[in-house]
Amino acid sequence: MSTSIERIEHDLLGDRPVPNEVYYGVHTLRALENFPITGIPISAYPNLVNALAFVKEAAALTNFELGLLAEHKMKAIVHACQQIRAGVAHEQFVVDVIQGGAGTSTNMNANEVIANLALEHLGHQRGDYAVLHPNEDVNLGQSTNDVYPTALKIATYLGLAQLIHAMGVLRASFERKAEEFRNDLKMGRTQLQDAVPMTLGQEFSTFAVMLGEDEERLKEASMLICEINLGATAIGTGINTSPEYAPLACKHLAAITGIPVTTSPNLVEATQDVGSFVQLSGVLKRVAVKLSKTCNDLRLLSSGPRAGLGEINLPPVQAGSSIMPGKVNPVIPEVVNQIAFEVIGNDVTVSFAAEAGQLQLNAFEPIIAHSLFKSVAHLRAGCLTLASKCVDGITANRERLLSLVENSIGIVTALNPYIGYTNATEVAQHALVTGKSVADVVIERGLLTREQLDEILQPAMLTQPRAALPFK
Amino acid sequence: MSTSIERIEHDLLGDRPVPNEVYYGVHTLRALENFPITGIPISAYPNLVNALAFVKEAAALTNFELGLLAEHKMKAIVHACQQIRAGVAHEQFVVDVIQGGAGTSTNMNANEVIANLALEHLGHQRGDYAVLHPNEDVNLGQSTNDVYPTALKIATYLGLAQLIHAMGVLRASFERKAEEFRNDLKMGRTQLQDAVPMTLGQEFSTFAVMLGEDEERLKEASMLICEINLGATAIGTGINTSPEYAPLACKHLAAITGIPVTTSPNLVEATQDVGSFVQLSGVLKRVAVKLSKTCNDLRLLSSGPRAGLGEINLPPVQAGSSIMPGKVNPVIPEVVNQIAFEVIGNDVTVSFAAEAGQLQLNAFEPIIAHSLFKSVAHLRAGCLTLASKCVDGITANRERLLSLVENSIGIVTALNPYIGYTNATEVAQHALVTGKSVADVVIERGLLTREQLDEILQPAMLTQPRAALPFK
Amino acid sequence: MSTSIERIEHDLLGDRPVPNEVYYGVHTLRALENFPITGIPISAYPNLVNALAFVKEAAALTNFELGLLAEHKMKAIVHACQQIRAGVAHEQFVVDVIQGGAGTSTNMNANEVIANLALEHLGHQRGDYAVLHPNEDVNLGQSTNDVYPTALKIATYLGLAQLIHAMGVLRASFERKAEEFRNDLKMGRTQLQDAVPMTLGQEFSTFAVMLGEDEERLKEASMLICEINLGATAIGTGINTSPEYAPLACKHLAAITGIPVTTSPNLVEATQDVGSFVQLSGVLKRVAVKLSKTCNDLRLLSSGPRAGLGEINLPPVQAGSSIMPGKVNPVIPEVVNQIAFEVIGNDVTVSFAAEAGQLQLNAFEPIIAHSLFKSVAHLRAGCLTLASKCVDGITANRERLLSLVENSIGIVTALNPYIGYTNATEVAQHALVTGKSVADVVIERGLLTREQLDEILQPAMLTQPRAALPFK
Amino acid sequence: MSTSIERIEHDLLGDRPVPNEVYYGVHTLRALENFPITGIPISAYPNLVNALAFVKEAAALTNFELGLLAEHKMKAIVHACQQIRAGVAHEQFVVDVIQGGAGTSTNMNANEVIANLALEHLGHQRGDYAVLHPNEDVNLGQSTNDVYPTALKIATYLGLAQLIHAMGVLRASFERKAEEFRNDLKMGRTQLQDAVPMTLGQEFSTFAVMLGEDEERLKEASMLICEINLGATAIGTGINTSPEYAPLACKHLAAITGIPVTTSPNLVEATQDVGSFVQLSGVLKRVAVKLSKTCNDLRLLSSGPRAGLGEINLPPVQAGSSIMPGKVNPVIPEVVNQIAFEVIGNDVTVSFAAEAGQLQLNAFEPIIAHSLFKSVAHLRAGCLTLASKCVDGITANRERLLSLVENSIGIVTALNPYIGYTNATEVAQHALVTGKSVADVVIERGLLTREQLDEILQPAMLTQPRAALPFK
Repeated sequence: MSTSIERIEHDLLGDRPVPNEVYYGVHTLRALENFPITGIPISAYPNLVNALAFVKEAAALTNFELGLLAEHKMKAIVHACQQIRAGVAHEQFVVDVIQGGAGTSTNMNANEVIANLALEHLGHQRGDYAVLHPNEDVNLGQSTNDVYPTALKIATYLGLAQLIHAMGVLRASFERKAEEFRNDLKMGRTQLQDAVPMTLGQEFSTFAVMLGEDEERLKEASMLICEINLGATAIGTGINTSPEYAPLACKHLAAITGIPVTTSPNLVEATQDVGSFVQLSGVLKRVAVKLSKTCNDLRLLSSGPRAGLGEINLPPVQAGSSIMPGKVNPVIPEVVNQIAFEVIGNDVTVSFAAEAGQLQLNAFEPIIAHSLFKSVAHLRAGCLTLASKCVDGITANRERLLSLVENSIGIVTALNPYIGYTNATEVAQHALVTGKSVADVVIERGLLTREQLDEILQPAMLTQPRAALPFK
Repeated sequence: MSTSIERIEHDLLGDRPVPNEVYYGVHTLRALENFPITGIPISAYPNLVNALAFVKEAAALTNFELGLLAEHKMKAIVHACQQIRAGVAHEQFVVDVIQGGAGTSTNMNANEVIANLALEHLGHQRGDYAVLHPNEDVNLGQSTNDVYPTALKIATYLGLAQLIHAMGVLRASFERKAEEFRNDLKMGRTQLQDAVPMTLGQEFSTFAVMLGEDEERLKEASMLICEINLGATAIGTGINTSPEYAPLACKHLAAITGIPVTTSPNLVEATQDVGSFVQLSGVLKRVAVKLSKTCNDLRLLSSGPRAGLGEINLPPVQAGSSIMPGKVNPVIPEVVNQIAFEVIGNDVTVSFAAEAGQLQLNAFEPIIAHSLFKSVAHLRAGCLTLASKCVDGITANRERLLSLVENSIGIVTALNPYIGYTNATEVAQHALVTGKSVADVVIERGLLTREQLDEILQPAMLTQPRAALPFK
Repeated sequence: MSTSIERIEHDLLGDRPVPNEVYYGVHTLRALENFPITGIPISAYPNLVNALAFVKEAAALTNFELGLLAEHKMKAIVHACQQIRAGVAHEQFVVDVIQGGAGTSTNMNANEVIANLALEHLGHQRGDYAVLHPNEDVNLGQSTNDVYPTALKIATYLGLAQLIHAMGVLRASFERKAEEFRNDLKMGRTQLQDAVPMTLGQEFSTFAVMLGEDEERLKEASMLICEINLGATAIGTGINTSPEYAPLACKHLAAITGIPVTTSPNLVEATQDVGSFVQLSGVLKRVAVKLSKTCNDLRLLSSGPRAGLGEINLPPVQAGSSIMPGKVNPVIPEVVNQIAFEVIGNDVTVSFAAEAGQLQLNAFEPIIAHSLFKSVAHLRAGCLTLASKCVDGITANRERLLSLVENSIGIVTALNPYIGYTNATEVAQHALVTGKSVADVVIERGLLTREQLDEILQPAMLTQPRAALPFK
Repeated sequence: MSTSIERIEHDLLGDRPVPNEVYYGVHTLRALENFPITGIPISAYPNLVNALAFVKEAAALTNFELGLLAEHKMKAIVHACQQIRAGVAHEQFVVDVIQGGAGTSTNMNANEVIANLALEHLGHQRGDYAVLHPNEDVNLGQSTNDVYPTALKIATYLGLAQLIHAMGVLRASFERKAEEFRNDLKMGRTQLQDAVPMTLGQEFSTFAVMLGEDEERLKEASMLICEINLGATAIGTGINTSPEYAPLACKHLAAITGIPVTTSPNLVEATQDVGSFVQLSGVLKRVAVKLSKTCNDLRLLSSGPRAGLGEINLPPVQAGSSIMPGKVNPVIPEVVNQIAFEVIGNDVTVSFAAEAGQLQLNAFEPIIAHSLFKSVAHLRAGCLTLASKCVDGITANRERLLSLVENSIGIVTALNPYIGYTNATEVAQHALVTGKSVADVVIERGLLTREQLDEILQPAMLTQPRAALPFK
């Protein structure tokens, strides 16, 4: 008997049976049929589901406070939202991550699931919308056009906090290595050519500092996305809300999320503008670019074992080849490189979607969200993996590092102040052609004594600024 | 008792328990731990799993023919590959779609699943690799570096065939509409300004022709990816294979797939080159760009219902707004726009990954594959959805179309040959300022008679090339 | 006689005649021959030439203060730098904007021109480097690897100030229009479908607010690029400088530029990191994306004159068509769209160049600089052009705006609080099908009285939040 | 006396003095004022100027043949076009390369210059348009919307021929090196880890083969852009042309250019479609990606001189550092890398511009053209420079190449068929840990004899497929 397993719901297109066991309703079902694109449901982004529950709870509290929503409805809605954030019913958020309609289906999915959880809590049947209605109660005073971007911002904020934490973990790993390698003299390289000496600690310190700067930039971008448009309703004019709605809703949202959200001073602008997402995407791209550069360096420094630079060793984490015995590959940096390439591509997707917004709304926020959520989550995974599976286990080939310095021509640079650029150039060329060491050529030519050389070429003299020594 | 639920496997890192119920082995397990990135397993791409099974089967047949693999092993491997293509054990392909190691883990995953399926078929325990070994038998004469790109090409070819079919479905839908609207005169627009008349059929025909051209370009790109490097082994020198291996393996692969694969004439080049993927990605981007443009046009032409162009109606597929009653939005074109934006972003990811290849191998093929597979699958879904949920149901607002033409200033262009560009410009400006019709102004100024105008302004005269009429 | 028109200079490759009349020398000549790429010399970026002169002056002052450079040399170098900033010898900066060598040729070009200007000032012949040497004196204590990025940052800072000013001009233009149109009621649109009313002033205000936000973001990005690495020398270890050099040079540079430059706390990191350029490029992309969206809107709102939205008129600035008389096209927004597309592409170039940096230096800063300089200069030109040639002259079609509102279905949204979403949906659908006005249908159905409707549908009630009226 | 230095011309905006000495007219002047963007005039692209002259000549011949243009006018126009192609008056093509108006200003610039050259030829004053008119005669039967894209295609075709030639020069250079290095055994590397042996000749051959394939792809893309829309006029309906116009114009254009142009079968589609430019841009991106990869490899292989791979030497072309004496950098590959990054960014610009086309025209073709022209010209310059300044002078460090092979662990792969993957893995690990050679470990363990090893490890055996030897 179909009545026992289905209920009938109604929308603009007519009646439609909905399986009784699901918490979502007819609007969600239509969306499921309309957007069979990726097979990935929005529940893949738990931060988004939780963010929707935060927004709906804040709206219910506000509507109650404004006398627009009965107390029992408010309480039931709040209960439903809290259940969701406790992990209940996430699997009911089924709309495809790539969807048309500017997020309407995501908002409707949330309205329906919350309404039915609330109805259940009130002792009613799912679908008994005369008692509590997805649109007239859960969505009261709201529009997809303010709910959806606000939820995206909350979700992004939550994701960014997780990413920043992971970057901190990776940074700490690099910092420990910088300390461990602080006395290991090595050749620095510019344009892949031998340059002048430095320490391996300085090299690893750089990786840490870069991450630290990126963390700062992400925190700034986090703050920019705290400006919300809840209360804007359809296009930012706030039609169908009272003037008290927006500030109250913002206050409630800040209170229950602990995120310092503020209401945009111009809601018409805020409703169509996705600038803060574009900015954030640019910063994520920056993170990706630099993380990729770091991984390129790790792969280069660990190239070998015998026909490469061979300065450091990455810990083996799996067999490297199905044909070459004993080969171990830098698979962890490689996976992080690929995450970075994805993030950079996502940024272009975001640019396109942002530019395509027309008039009072950007209809393409779902793909912006999808792109950002992927970038944030994958970068986070990449940082944690890189730290624990690679950086933590890196070791230095100290003898090789030192022999490369001693054998180098680049140390001639340190002699510039004593013998002049022109002499130094000739020494360098002679050493290169003859295979001799720079020191030998300098002494041979009577430019400096062995003692002077020893003094000039001390590690501490080579790896930081210092005044020219008094001799000469 | 742990022995009943786990078996012990061994790799370069040592011993490792593997759950007994799984068909994959230690190498796959390591990869699972090393790459916890997206949560999406490679089984999300059934074409790839099937392609791996094709390649392994071709290799087994070749090795048997070369006398390198015993018949019972060959038969067991072939059986396993055929089972996989019949849909068995796809869920055993568990490595993350974003992975380091240049595809090694994907290849190892295939070797292990096939070995264990084959062992089972031979009546042995999973893990009994002394009988039939993932590496020494299933991977015999192969390297990830030839197996993986070859499998990617087979998988891509299969996906492209599906995409091209879907584009044909969409094209046919546009063609039907072009026929249906062939007599509906309307204003053409350039730079969003009223230009000269055309038919709505011509407009829809354009959408069809664009798709048709893109189908041709995709077919050409399909052919380019038929050039494989199977037999290249590690770097293209074919180390550890006999000279007969590559041609034989190619012949078997062509036979069992029905795809016209050929062996690259320079296997060293072919092993490191991802040019054909870059080219394909560029063509997919072209498809995306044009599909997006088409959707932009559909959304623009259907804008309204009262304050827009309102020339056509898209069929409603869901309620459009949680706040605006009766609003119906162009959600299907919108979702296709977003797919296009994703594809364009994916192309940038592919460019980065391709450029980052170093020396004898591109280690970043997994993200190239992931990007291409997504693009192909989502474009396909977008085309089918656009056809069935939108284009098939489009209707024309005939009265509005005609009234816009009659009321237009753009028809003055048709008078150029009779009254000259300078007169025509003055007529146009006068009509614009006064709100009069072009015809009235022309007659008023004695430039042409009503009869002459009627003859010049016939639809058939306006919408195709024709010699100037003899009068004047 | 060749001696009268050429001088002989010497470098690592040997002797080389240099035309006597030029101020640059052998290194610049080599670069000219090595990089015949675009034909565009670095003098195309006056801010860069001036920035180089700032850096060299700061270095000379510092070296003098540290006792490393004789006073007469310092004074001659300072004089040369000031001459350059006064516009002298810009045409001597001839190296191609796309160049290899990490900016070495640009630095050498500056060293040589400054040395020869200084020699001339001191009464010596050009090329008389025994008196004052491009490398040993002008470049004293410096390396391309600290000079070049520092100069790029100064140049970018100068360019950004110009861009921000131009954005302010455009913003003011939009603000004037927002004020002019503040009472013009119109239909808002979401997803290109009629939504709810707003004012044209609100629409233009949005354009202004977006620009204002972008100006803020650019100012923040400006501050990030004030962190310089002067004193880092080759790789950041400060080899060949004294510890006092970096802080002193920074102090002098801040003083003569008026830019709040600071020395990076980690010079090894700062020397290889181009993160602040990537970040800035992302912000420029944001500006581009939003400017393009604004131009899209202007083109859409002015579409017509008769078969488009026709809400506003852009001032005609040129004939629009070589075939369609009287056609006027939105050429100014179109050129700004194209600038935006270029900027977005430039951002991808910057990402690639940034990611490609290896180890202690990014060798690809020249293309980063070229991309940023183009983006900044073209955006600036676009803003000024858009303001003066387009926005300033925009007029509103007031009657059409109002008739679209009165005729719209979207105003039914305003009735939700009085008649409920379900009734409102039915009204909307009935109005759409019958062609009736929403007001007529509402009254016909007895849902509200004419008087109530008049009160609800007042402009001031429609375009801002307000409490539901007490009736019903 | 102003009459002697200015003439008065007229357009839609009114009268306007034009300097008498210029060949362009009022429309060009307006465009100059409207688009002060880059300062780069379209004359920077000589192929475009010549292409416009080709199209205008073909149109004049056609109009004469159709009896629409008097013979003396036709002859004068043809003469003017031929003068232009002979290099006359290129500097009169002054409109900015970034311009609004869908190319109208470029077309008008051509019409005016050609009209005035023709007037001069006929013995009339510049500006005497009553005798021969830019629009009514030079542009007769044409529209910007067919002339401009057709000219772009001709110009692009010409540019591509130059690029393909340059790629051939570079390819030949690589081929010579491949031959020179054909016997130099070296280690191949995958994922930057030592893999198996190959020859340096194989490595360089790869660079040549990649280029050869790209040349083929470019030739295919060249053919796609031979499909033109001349005769489409405003939107492709051919309004104001006779049915004979398009085929005749195409025939003439093919004859005078020698390019196999054909008329598109659907001119409405062809007029709005920029798909062939998008495709071409994708192929140029492919070329860029692979050229960049090649340059990355050259830089990596030549890294050192002592602390890098040091396998090859690039010829020094300039001093490499202003601080490090004797340093020589890979500046030529570096400049090519940067060209590649620019081209990849240009491709994104093209994608944006293509996607933004609306309805019957793409208004953004000027930036598409600008992007493509830059990409083609810079890639050409890059190829020629790379060949003559770098590849031609590359030398191999033969001793180092060989010692890396002999010292490698990777040769153990060649032993797989004799000792099995498991034994080989143990040998590899033992060699790595102890620093011993693979050969020594194998003999020590009694796995193979010295004689067997010598036979297996012959160069010819290692660098191509071969059957396993019979022993064992």
